[in-house]
Amino acid sequence: MNQQLFSIIEGGSITTPGGFKAGGLHCGLKKTDRNDLGVILCEVPATAAAVYTTNVFQAAPLKVTRESLVDGKLQAVIVNSGNANACTGEQGEADAYEMRAAAARELGVAEEAVAVASTGVIGELLKMDCVRSGIAGLPHKLDGGAAGAEEFCQAILTTDLVKKECCVQVKVGGKLVTIAGAAKGSGMIHPNMATMLGFMTTDAVIAAEDLHGLLRQATEVTFNMITVDGDTSTNDMLVTMASGLAGNEVLGKLHPDWDAFAAAFTHVCRSLAMSIARDGEGATHLIEVQVNGAVHAEAAAAIAKTVVGSSLVKSAVFGADANWGRIIAAVGRAGVPVSPDRVDIALGEIPVLSQSRPVAFDEELALAYLQKSETITITVDLQDGSGAATAWGCDLTYDYVRINAAYRT
Amino acid sequence: MNQQLFSIIEGGSITTPGGFKAGGLHCGLKKTDRNDLGVILCEVPATAAAVYTTNVFQAAPLKVTRESLVDGKLQAVIVNSGNANACTGEQGEADAYEMRAAAARELGVAEEAVAVASTGVIGELLKMDCVRSGIAGLPHKLDGGAAGAEEFCQAILTTDLVKKECCVQVKVGGKLVTIAGAAKGSGMIHPNMATMLGFMTTDAVIAAEDLHGLLRQATEVTFNMITVDGDTSTNDMLVTMASGLAGNEVLGKLHPDWDAFAAAFTHVCRSLAMSIARDGEGATHLIEVQVNGAVHAEAAAAIAKTVVGSSLVKSAVFGADANWGRIIAAVGRAGVPVSPDRVDIALGEIPVLSQSRPVAFDEELALAYLQKSETITITVDLQDGSGAATAWGCDLTYDYVRINAAYRT
Repeated sequence: MNQQLFSIIEGGSITTPGGFKAGGLHCGLKKTDRNDLGVILCEVPATAAAVYTTNVFQAAPLKVTRESLVDGKLQAVIVNSGNANACTGEQGEADAYEMRAAAARELGVAEEAVAVASTGVIGELLKMDCVRSGIAGLPHKLDGGAAGAEEFCQAILTTDLVKKECCVQVKVGGKLVTIAGAAKGSGMIHPNMATMLGFMTTDAVIAAEDLHGLLRQATEVTFNMITVDGDTSTNDMLVTMASGLAGNEVLGKLHPDWDAFAAAFTHVCRSLAMSIARDGEGATHLIEVQVNGAVHAEAAAAIAKTVVGSSLVKSAVFGADANWGRIIAAVGRAGVPVSPDRVDIALGEIPVLSQSRPVAFDEELALAYLQKSETITITVDLQDGSGAATAWGCDLTYDYVRINAAYRT
Repeated sequence: MNQQLFSIIEGGSITTPGGFKAGGLHCGLKKTDRNDLGVILCEVPATAAAVYTTNVFQAAPLKVTRESLVDGKLQAVIVNSGNANACTGEQGEADAYEMRAAAARELGVAEEAVAVASTGVIGELLKMDCVRSGIAGLPHKLDGGAAGAEEFCQAILTTDLVKKECCVQVKVGGKLVTIAGAAKGSGMIHPNMATMLGFMTTDAVIAAEDLHGLLRQATEVTFNMITVDGDTSTNDMLVTMASGLAGNEVLGKLHPDWDAFAAAFTHVCRSLAMSIARDGEGATHLIEVQVNGAVHAEAAAAIAKTVVGSSLVKSAVFGADANWGRIIAAVGRAGVPVSPDRVDIALGEIPVLSQSRPVAFDEELALAYLQKSETITITVDLQDGSGAATAWGCDLTYDYVRINAAYRT
């Protein structure tokens, strides 16, 4: 994360890049009066790309969005929360198509320029009367400022406690390019190719295939490196739209500012992914696991995700217990090569294992670190090679159980 | 499980097969006054086999036990709880060898005839003064009846609430052969080749390679099909000893009673494995996931283990929430081929999904089933082939978090 290549825009949002408006409202899908329908609109057809869940059971909106994206263009995204429209058969597909058609009509864009996303309970049909009247009201809610983005961000949340946003700016051939994103997460979070729901906007001029390649690359080291509960959703989708209104020379891998743009783009992905992990269901801590010295990057990634996903490690962090035995047990079951005799582990700055042997450490200091730090960093050095990776997750708490013992009720 | 091939012996234990004594005592490794040191002794050198954890970090006692088992013979097992003797380096290895030597001396058997097992906290050195004085006291505790087995079973428990035992009898060439087992489980339970700690005794006459083959085969469909928390321990070990005192013709795959013996042996493994799942940390329900109609048995096993290991499914069972969306989401992320349009799911006898479409079911009936049944059965039929498998686990509860948030303290 080289922050000198780009600037972080505090207070920026998905409407900050040139050409984007957003909005949201409550249409009746959620039992509370919180927003449950949101829209992003670009004033021109945007170059677009998306990645989707690898779950075999893909929700109806994913099918519709894939169709819309065949030509690498999108102009709007319509999204609802409160209902995933997954495992809903032909009626669910028809409903997703109807959402797309209604949004296109109300927003004055082509049907094939609209992406559809849903999140919420699986296996229930959408209340289409709510969706229809909601979509009819959306054009009046569109706003190109922070308010529109705020309403949109509220509309995509389910059990999330806070909205997730990020905005950065980077110079491309002397032109200022803005990249922003919004996401939701919370539960059933173990993304594999995309996260629960993520939306990114930029005004960069970039070819669709380069945008898609960058999206996949950035997703691999950000969204795909978080886990809340090991459960990969049926609805994961990350959509990105580039309006091209920044007027820069076309970006591509050979452009001198490609690395800066890629770093800025990846920063937005990482920031959103970390926000999702930090706001995992019931979480009280963000856990960051940094693995160094693995035989290759894939091995490092497998180990980092295994450690951060271990229920025992997660419970220990919740209990502020410096129980490194659970960390090394997780390292050892990750299914990748590890030399068992030369592992170093540290909690924050406190070494607890050196060359696979316990280090006498100050238990009070470790307790204070685990109790007082919002982010708990676990560093594992395998001294087997140069493979490195970072994964993010959260602790396992009473509230995770409470939230998920009665999600539908 | 064809129960006509063998008989279940109520009240039977690891000392029921001919030739075995057992015992246990408190030597000071546990902070409470519960037993923490146990022994099984066979009056003759027994044909023996074992399977071990696949975790890269294998505890010192596993190394020692592998050495003892090189010749396929054992006469005793010494086991402690309260300390795993894992990640303890050269001193830990020396301690495991010393446990073996001391047990051999006190019991009057060869050192290479003794297996060593440990369970408990990782990364702390054994209090060898406790172990030494404990081993010296063990010979006086040896008992060939139920009392000896009881003391042994108590000695191997950690956070377990109940002991796990099973005993069956089967006729081999007209001779009555007895097979029994004892195990411990509770947490860090996601066995891969063996379970936390399991000990089986039989008086059958059987060659070591046949015993080992049967042990691996039975483990694959029993111990390897349970999960409490997805965490594979550093200390998993399942040891079986056959005294040969039943006097049957030598068992082998061509013996006409092999199938009956194998079924009886597998029954003991399954019974112990299910007991471990039922007594998983904090559990209030045993969850049994039966997958039918998969493309092959391996796919069925992968799906069954993914469903039973899903934190969201486990939380829903705890909350008596008939949330089948989480079940199908888990089926879809198991990483094996599934036709997405023809999945049936039932909770107990209640169909909730048919051909991947929701079935209108009686929520009250489902609630009653989930609240009142001790065992929750989830049946998934994929209608893709003839692969079938069963996996066992337990619900995720507040108590799991409570137990694991403060395990060391």
